[in-house]
Formats: sequence, C-alpha cells, structure tokens
Amino acid sequence: MDFTVETATAAVVESFQGTKDARLRELMESLTRHLHAFVKDIEPTLDEWEAAIGFLTATGQKCDDTRQEFVLLSDVLGVSMLVETMNGDEQGTESTVLGPFHMTESPRRELGDSIDLLGTGRPCVVSGRVLSPDGTPLAGAELDVWQCTEDGFYDVQQPDVQPPGNGRGLFHTDVEGRYWFRTVVPSHYPIPTDGPVGGLLRATGRHPYRPAHVHFIASAPGHRPVTTHAFVAGSPYVDSDAVFAVKRGLITDFTESQDQQEAERFGVTTPFRHATFDIVLATAPDHAP
Amino acid sequence: MDFTVETATAAVVESFQGTKDARLRELMESLTRHLHAFVKDIEPTLDEWEAAIGFLTATGQKCDDTRQEFVLLSDVLGVSMLVETMNGDEQGTESTVLGPFHMTESPRRELGDSIDLLGTGRPCVVSGRVLSPDGTPLAGAELDVWQCTEDGFYDVQQPDVQPPGNGRGLFHTDVEGRYWFRTVVPSHYPIPTDGPVGGLLRATGRHPYRPAHVHFIASAPGHRPVTTHAFVAGSPYVDSDAVFAVKRGLITDFTESQDQQEAERFGVTTPFRHATFDIVLATAPDHAP
Repeated sequence: MDFTVETATAAVVESFQGTKDARLRELMESLTRHLHAFVKDIEPTLDEWEAAIGFLTATGQKCDDTRQEFVLLSDVLGVSMLVETMNGDEQGTESTVLGPFHMTESPRRELGDSIDLLGTGRPCVVSGRVLSPDGTPLAGAELDVWQCTEDGFYDVQQPDVQPPGNGRGLFHTDVEGRYWFRTVVPSHYPIPTDGPVGGLLRATGRHPYRPAHVHFIASAPGHRPVTTHAFVAGSPYVDSDAVFAVKRGLITDFTESQDQQEAERFGVTTPFRHATFDIVLATAPDHAP
Repeated sequence: MDFTVETATAAVVESFQGTKDARLRELMESLTRHLHAFVKDIEPTLDEWEAAIGFLTATGQKCDDTRQEFVLLSDVLGVSMLVETMNGDEQGTESTVLGPFHMTESPRRELGDSIDLLGTGRPCVVSGRVLSPDGTPLAGAELDVWQCTEDGFYDVQQPDVQPPGNGRGLFHTDVEGRYWFRTVVPSHYPIPTDGPVGGLLRATGRHPYRPAHVHFIASAPGHRPVTTHAFVAGSPYVDSDAVFAVKRGLITDFTESQDQQEAERFGVTTPFRHATFDIVLATAPDHAP
C-alpha cells in the first residue's frame, strides 16, 4: 500500500489497467514509466517542481486562435520533428514540421500566379514536378504553399501591412505534373519569443531563428500527402534551425538567372531567382499495386 | 546536419550546451533524453501528437486563481508524490502531497478551538504532540491544519455555504508540545473532474476519489517543516487514493469515545470521535548537533 520511490511507478502503471482503449493504456503506461524515470533521474526540489508547473501553465495560457505555444515547445525540443520523421515514408520526399503558421486556408491560384501580393520584392520563381516513386508525373496534384516575406513575416503576423493570403497559394499541377508560381525569396526569421518558450531559449542560450524556407503540403489521389519545406540554400541558420527541421535533401538552390527567355515564360524581369523543387509522393498503402 | 530518429536526441541535447546555469542544463538534457525515449517508444501518429498538444493546452487554460489543473495532472500521475517523497526526511513523520486546496491563509486559533464553523457535524477531537526525532516535545511549534466537511467540500469550493476559514486553523503547541482542536470527521471526496484531468480519469477507467484526511503543515525552529495528512482509518479509497498519497504510517484511528471526563476536557458531548496524531520533525541540517 505504501507509496515509495521504489513502488511508485508500478502503482501508477497499475492504476491504468482498467483502460478499455488498448492504445490509450499503452500510451499512459509508457508515459508513466518515462516521466517517473525523468523525475527520479533529476530529483527535483519542491521549488523546481513548482517552477515546472508554472512554466506548463503559462505555456497553455499563452495559446489562443493565432498562437500555439505548446506546438512551439514541442518544436524547440525536437519532438515535432521526431514525430514527423517517424510518420514519414521513405518512398517519398522527406517530410518536415508543419509549423505554427498554417492557420488560414490558402487562396486557390492558377499556375504562374504570384503569391507576392505586395509586389515590392525581388522576383523569384519556384517550379517543379510532383511525381510517383517510379517517376510517373502526377497531373492535378494539389500543392498548398505558404511562406514569409523578404522581411521574415507571415501575413497573419502583420495584418496591418500584408493583405490576407499574401505568401500563400493553393495550386494544382498540369497534365505533365508540373507546377510553377511567382513569389519573393523568403527570409530567415525568429520564432515568437514573447512567451514561455522564448524565455526557455534565452535561459539556455539558444537563438530563436529558422533558416529561410517555403512550406509545401503536396497531395494526390492514391498517394500519401507530404508536409515539407524547400530550404533556401545558403540561408543563415541552415545548420542550426531552432526547431531542428532541416534535412539535407530539402535544401534547394534559389539561383540567380539572367535568362531572358525563361523570364518571359514565367512573367518576371531579369535578374530573377529560380528554385526547382520536385516532390515525390509515396504510394498510399490501400492503393499500392 | 540531417535530423533523423537516430540523431535527434543528440542534436537537441547539443543545443542546450550553451546553458550557463549548470542545473538548468542538466534538467533540459535529462528532459530531452526521457521525452525522446517516450516518443520513440510509442511512435505517436500525427493525430495522437495533436491530441496531446490539445490536452496540455486545455490543462493550462483550465487554471485560474482557484484551480491548478497541472498540479492535478501531476497528482494523478504520481509525480507530486514522487517529488514529495524524494524531498522527505526519514528522521521525521512521512510527508505527502500539499494538494490544491491550501490556497488561503488559515485563521490563527487557540488550542481547543473548533475549526467547524458550521457546528452541524458530529463532534470530533484531533490531538497530539509535535516532537524532535529524539522524542523532545517542541513547544510553540506551528501547525497549519485544513480539511473538508463531512460532505467532502473545502470552504473555497462552497463560498455560498461555508464561511471563509471553515475547516482551517493555525495552531501553536503548548509548553509540552501538545496540540488539540475540535472539528468534524472529514469525508472522502472526488478531485475536481470537470477539466482535462477528469476526462483522463474517465477515459482510463479510474475513479477520482481521495480517502478522508486532515492536512497538516508542521514547523518549528531548528527543524525541517513537514507537509502531511492524517488519513481516517477505514475510509473508502484508503487503498486506492486517486493521487497515490497514502502512506501506511499516516493512517490514524478516529475512535468513537464515550469518555465523559475527556469530553468535558475537550468541550464536546459524548459520543465523540477522537484521533491522536503525533508529528515528528527532522532536525534542520544547519541546526544539527
């Protein structure tokens, strides 16, 4: 009956034995074992335990319709990437974090449209193909794209400066699986630092920056969707992303081009930056041959 | 550079190497290792990860001036008791959880006063001594006492029914280290179940009840304070406290007495219940002989 450091974990695990949902029981048992191992490892003082309770409470209370501080905490502890990576499919393009800025629906746009509604940035074209693992082009594949400005802000962060939908677009590939759109080269930027997670980064001497990137969610019938980024090669922080999201295969050259013919084809002026980013979608299990 | 399931933990641990506070660095490294081990163990789906984020967010948002849902979560996972037990002192009376109801200051009362301000309950006397480990009585030791009613509610839970300070008292022992006060026998009661923690208990088939108990914080100069309970022997749930706080040594008989002489001494009528609960305080390290 006595609760001791030695009997604690077994007693709490035992309390979950009546859980009807077998998966939930497995989750709670594993959580109990790992959480207790952590507590026994560090032997917190009562003041440290109170500080942890206070930190978690403040993290929950920082959340609202446009802010998810627990996702941010998961991000900076590498948990989001761990979960994303374990749920990826080796057949397809590597996945990476969704991040906290996919909060509004992207406006539907035509291939070649510009997602830079401000029109003040240096011109850039992003193009590529969506493919099956065997190289078959996927016509009509959906691409949800979002990115920040050259100044490093998403539309939702600057409602007074950017029109809604700036930097966002929902595209569909053509009959040859191709896509292309006009934009600006996104900037590196800091994750929000005015909450408990920002305080944690400061206390641990970590910077809050993410290297420049364009977000994609690609999907097509019969295939597994992928959430990923095209990282801008040479961007600051590409080797020390605050949320650990960089995978080498996702680093993409945003090359300066003087090609007049291509510029005309894409509707931009020279010089322009051009990134080519192909996306491979794994076959969905229930559609596998 | 690549983030993989294999390299993830080392990468996140490495990110905390610049932490100036050595204890904070130790905490974050240990947290990272145990948290990643948990995630790798259970391999959560993206939906499960989102559900976990939602649960933690709701737990933070349930907290206010009179409710601490993260403490409740820590309690039902056995973490509060683990921390309390690791910080206890074997020289003294066993410690147990503070619980979420020690939120108002207890009114100062004289020995023999009643903490039952309603006066409708069956009479009960709690008495005992506060002692040093060698048995020396501690005169003037402070005892902060709080408990629920016979119906299982603390004053702060029933502001329309109970006057503030009902069930609470701040006492000091007499020259022989003795204390005694009048009260009612507290009831077993459920922890609050209208929040995320209540949902967790329901989903896992766990009951929310705590066995009946009187809370104490005892302190005296030159000694380590102790936070503990006197559990009512024979109370329902004494073998399955929802927060794992029962220690065998803290279970106390609340015996029915017909002793007319004692009843007069304590200012109660017969029959009355009588509990004797002695508290031993460990010597404080900087006052050790």
